[in-house]
Amino acid sequence: MKLIHHSQVNLKNGFFFDKQELNRTATIKAVYDRFSETGRIGAFKFGFPEKDPIQPHYFWDSDVAKWMEGAAYILHHNSDPDLEAKVDEIIDDIARNQCEDGYFNIFFTVVQPENRWANRDWHELYCAGHLMEAAVAYAEATGKTKFLACMEKYADYIAKVFMEEHSASFHTPGHEEIELALVKMYRHTGKRKYLDMAAHFINTRGTVDEFNKTAYNQAHLPVREQDSAVGHAVRAVYLYTGMAYLAKETGDETLTAACKKLWDDITNRKMYITGGLGSTYIGEAFTTPFDLPPDQAYTETCAGIGLCFFGNGMLALDHNAIYADVIERALYNGVLSGLSTDGAQFFYENPLEINLSERFTNAWGARRFPAHRRVACFSCSCCPPNVNRLLASLGGYVYGLDGDTLYINQFASSDMTDGDVTAAIETAYPNEGKVTVSVAGVSKLAIRIPAWCESYTLNKAHTLQNGYAIVDNDGTPVVLEMDLTPRRVWADSRVLRAAGQAAIMKGPIVYCAEGVDNGESDLHNYILPASFTAVEASNATYGLPTLTVPCVKRVSDGSSLYRNQPPKTVEAELKLIPYNAFANRAETDMRVWFWAE
Amino acid sequence: MKLIHHSQVNLKNGFFFDKQELNRTATIKAVYDRFSETGRIGAFKFGFPEKDPIQPHYFWDSDVAKWMEGAAYILHHNSDPDLEAKVDEIIDDIARNQCEDGYFNIFFTVVQPENRWANRDWHELYCAGHLMEAAVAYAEATGKTKFLACMEKYADYIAKVFMEEHSASFHTPGHEEIELALVKMYRHTGKRKYLDMAAHFINTRGTVDEFNKTAYNQAHLPVREQDSAVGHAVRAVYLYTGMAYLAKETGDETLTAACKKLWDDITNRKMYITGGLGSTYIGEAFTTPFDLPPDQAYTETCAGIGLCFFGNGMLALDHNAIYADVIERALYNGVLSGLSTDGAQFFYENPLEINLSERFTNAWGARRFPAHRRVACFSCSCCPPNVNRLLASLGGYVYGLDGDTLYINQFASSDMTDGDVTAAIETAYPNEGKVTVSVAGVSKLAIRIPAWCESYTLNKAHTLQNGYAIVDNDGTPVVLEMDLTPRRVWADSRVLRAAGQAAIMKGPIVYCAEGVDNGESDLHNYILPASFTAVEASNATYGLPTLTVPCVKRVSDGSSLYRNQPPKTVEAELKLIPYNAFANRAETDMRVWFWAE
Repeated sequence: MKLIHHSQVNLKNGFFFDKQELNRTATIKAVYDRFSETGRIGAFKFGFPEKDPIQPHYFWDSDVAKWMEGAAYILHHNSDPDLEAKVDEIIDDIARNQCEDGYFNIFFTVVQPENRWANRDWHELYCAGHLMEAAVAYAEATGKTKFLACMEKYADYIAKVFMEEHSASFHTPGHEEIELALVKMYRHTGKRKYLDMAAHFINTRGTVDEFNKTAYNQAHLPVREQDSAVGHAVRAVYLYTGMAYLAKETGDETLTAACKKLWDDITNRKMYITGGLGSTYIGEAFTTPFDLPPDQAYTETCAGIGLCFFGNGMLALDHNAIYADVIERALYNGVLSGLSTDGAQFFYENPLEINLSERFTNAWGARRFPAHRRVACFSCSCCPPNVNRLLASLGGYVYGLDGDTLYINQFASSDMTDGDVTAAIETAYPNEGKVTVSVAGVSKLAIRIPAWCESYTLNKAHTLQNGYAIVDNDGTPVVLEMDLTPRRVWADSRVLRAAGQAAIMKGPIVYCAEGVDNGESDLHNYILPASFTAVEASNATYGLPTLTVPCVKRVSDGSSLYRNQPPKTVEAELKLIPYNAFANRAETDMRVWFWAE
Repeated sequence: MKLIHHSQVNLKNGFFFDKQELNRTATIKAVYDRFSETGRIGAFKFGFPEKDPIQPHYFWDSDVAKWMEGAAYILHHNSDPDLEAKVDEIIDDIARNQCEDGYFNIFFTVVQPENRWANRDWHELYCAGHLMEAAVAYAEATGKTKFLACMEKYADYIAKVFMEEHSASFHTPGHEEIELALVKMYRHTGKRKYLDMAAHFINTRGTVDEFNKTAYNQAHLPVREQDSAVGHAVRAVYLYTGMAYLAKETGDETLTAACKKLWDDITNRKMYITGGLGSTYIGEAFTTPFDLPPDQAYTETCAGIGLCFFGNGMLALDHNAIYADVIERALYNGVLSGLSTDGAQFFYENPLEINLSERFTNAWGARRFPAHRRVACFSCSCCPPNVNRLLASLGGYVYGLDGDTLYINQFASSDMTDGDVTAAIETAYPNEGKVTVSVAGVSKLAIRIPAWCESYTLNKAHTLQNGYAIVDNDGTPVVLEMDLTPRRVWADSRVLRAAGQAAIMKGPIVYCAEGVDNGESDLHNYILPASFTAVEASNATYGLPTLTVPCVKRVSDGSSLYRNQPPKTVEAELKLIPYNAFANRAETDMRVWFWAE
């Protein structure tokens, strides 16, 4: 299907809209301010006295580029002269400081010019890719092409170095990103050479002997032979997204087949219930199938975002709701958990369990667990501006068009226009299960029935196909009503670290409990009943209800550490909040998986 | 009570006897051979050309000293001229190479003589303590006093340095051990000065400002103010043992009170079901109460052995079966697991859970888990000779005498003589629950009723007191019959990592399941039924039966990673082996805690 570009979609109200507004009014500014304070913005001036305590880092360019891309998406929908001026100033800096030959990288121009293209893992092509994505976004948003011209010049220079001269010390990027960016350059400019470059980097990967030709960066095998998601999770999903984009443009079925295998491996074996990816901090990486420890989860915010990119890329290739289901899982849970409710603090890692009692530190150190509080900026601050650009482009996940069928992939109050086709969605989802879709200009509507949804009604005759309910468009609204009663959800029995336990979900929302509501060092003692009626209470801060579930809880009688009888239980209430809102109030325990009767 | 010294007790047959024989015939030789190959034995010759690839390490003395102590205990019961000659040769080396002033330490004489007493953490007093224990043991066993004379000379020199001159760079040992050794020196020689030295080191600890005055080495507070077991677990239990020994000799009630608090903290909050101590490899240390992760357990073999020492020290102070219960738990489980069934391979750490699937290694490394196979020698090889000396002195854990009451603390076929008092135990424990005790020369018998034992019969009228059944001795055998039906055992609900789960025990024996018997990556799916009849099968290698428990098991239908229904279950059989025998067959998964209906 053709995904309807975010620029053609206006979110109107509801959960997605509120998050997009939070990004526009708070997050985009907060990230800019932190990037200014830390020298990232100023770095584009290229003025670094040797003794300046602030020196650019070799992937700062990408941090700012992602912020610029996010700003561009915002500017597409909302005039903001101040924001636009900030972007323009950076663009002016880029244009002024770009090398004569087209090269642009702050660190490898100002600090270590002798090391240009010297090390595959120094992120030059990664930074280039992010700058290209931002340039395309800014051209689309504002019509101004100065930035894009710079990046076209840079891309042409990269083509010369990597496709003609082969003069760099490596052949493909260590951290993938430029592949998908080049497809975006091609789509925007129509210039085939950018698609060819994307194909060059993707097709060369894993076929040549070069530094760090490892599974860590998905360079262990030619991409079409890869069927297991391995290595650094963000790198992986960026590569797979580039592969999906390329397959869409070229119709390359071998590449599509590889993408489908990798998607299957991730989503059926290596994905947390929150849509988080990456089970170990060591290499920020995928591990083995079903190894999904909740307390040790790495689940980088960027990896969840990358999964959404990959999912949309697959949706464009293959008309199947499985992709939109996973995007929904990631968006509402493991991606949004990366952002505080005030829009200004971030998680890099998004654990699914926090046990403060295990974070014991002695004279020799502490066991390694993910951070349990969000911070305003990281030294490696890739995630915050990734949140900026994702939230500002959320509209791009809602609609798709294929021939005379309009697809509804996500449920968000919005309207869209694409030529003669217009559509509108009205819904309070995911707080309420009713979704009303009005559409004109197509003969059919395909509305996703989420895989989690086992009970729904639709006001029209329909057939089910690949997870979508297909309805003939008779010009009157289509009304889908999904049952959002909070339910227990289990993992496959092969997931060691979820064994015997269940999570609570309401629709697509994963819930968690915090110690601050339920007692510290005690969350593991709550046992979910086989059937229950959760009491929902609306919560303006979260934009989603909190839940109270009647259950029982193990209690200690303090008699002895080991005994022949099980612990006694008492009646209790488990208070749950949306997982995406955890750690907004206090340093506290948190848990997603609970023992279940 | 007065504990009956191992030299007065002959183990006759059964589980303890078999392990003692394994030690005598295999383990003592295996450790000697490894220590020879690695240069530890030869180091006592003091001949190290600078370029010799083998150079002594600063605590090698203690490794060999513990082996000598074990050899001495063996020689007490069995003539073995070859073994005795080996010990004598080392003793000759010690006598020949001891410094004129009495100092003896290979490393700080041969390699770094300039660093004598320079660093509290370099284990000189620890090595001295082990040499003293060995010297006492050898004098007791053989009547030869050459070694003891050397160590008396060394002790006198240490007294001069630490109690008169205060000329060392520190005041108390970094790694405790010499305290308990000095009490043994006092008990054997009757020389008060050694008890005073023990008191000096114990009373000074935590009261002076010195290097590394930390909880890591129990130096954060004066010992009488310590009520929480902290820091390096082996150091801790060695200190506490020394404190208990000193309290026994001096009647110091404040010290006894501290020992009781520390015992309570360990055994009711910080001890694994196997008697293992130390929840983190970081600092090989205790952590917080109820933090007992089975897969991350450090549970050093030496810590379990030290717990037995501390337990016996407490038993001598306080007539309570709680100490013997814990000794039993440690001896049969987390201590013996440190030794392979062939008697020649060792665990340093004794995990309670192995999940091979989590031991994923990528280009950047692997999560840290304990070793899952035993090895013949460690670079820090403290545990193997500790096993030597413990097994060779097992008889010392069986009997105690207080006035006209003979105490039976452990159940092992044996006889004992102490003056006019004689006793004999006949039992096939822990394979069978019947224990027959014959005693003469006392008017009462106190026989421990283990806390785990909720059903037993005794053939005489008795009263229960502090966990012992007190019986009038009428000259006829006392027969205790304990119900050893395999049962489920739970941890206190505060133990996060055992929540919802139970272990299987038969009497004092903790059982485990291995992947090799039950399928890899699947042990977490077995669910123990509320009631069951375990099928027992005798196993000559283990000296204990294996068990088969009918249960159900979760199975994957492979449908999707997350679903609204719990995994299906099927009928299954869980095959269990004694925990102390795990990892003797293959590289395989292992689990102690199972979900329980």
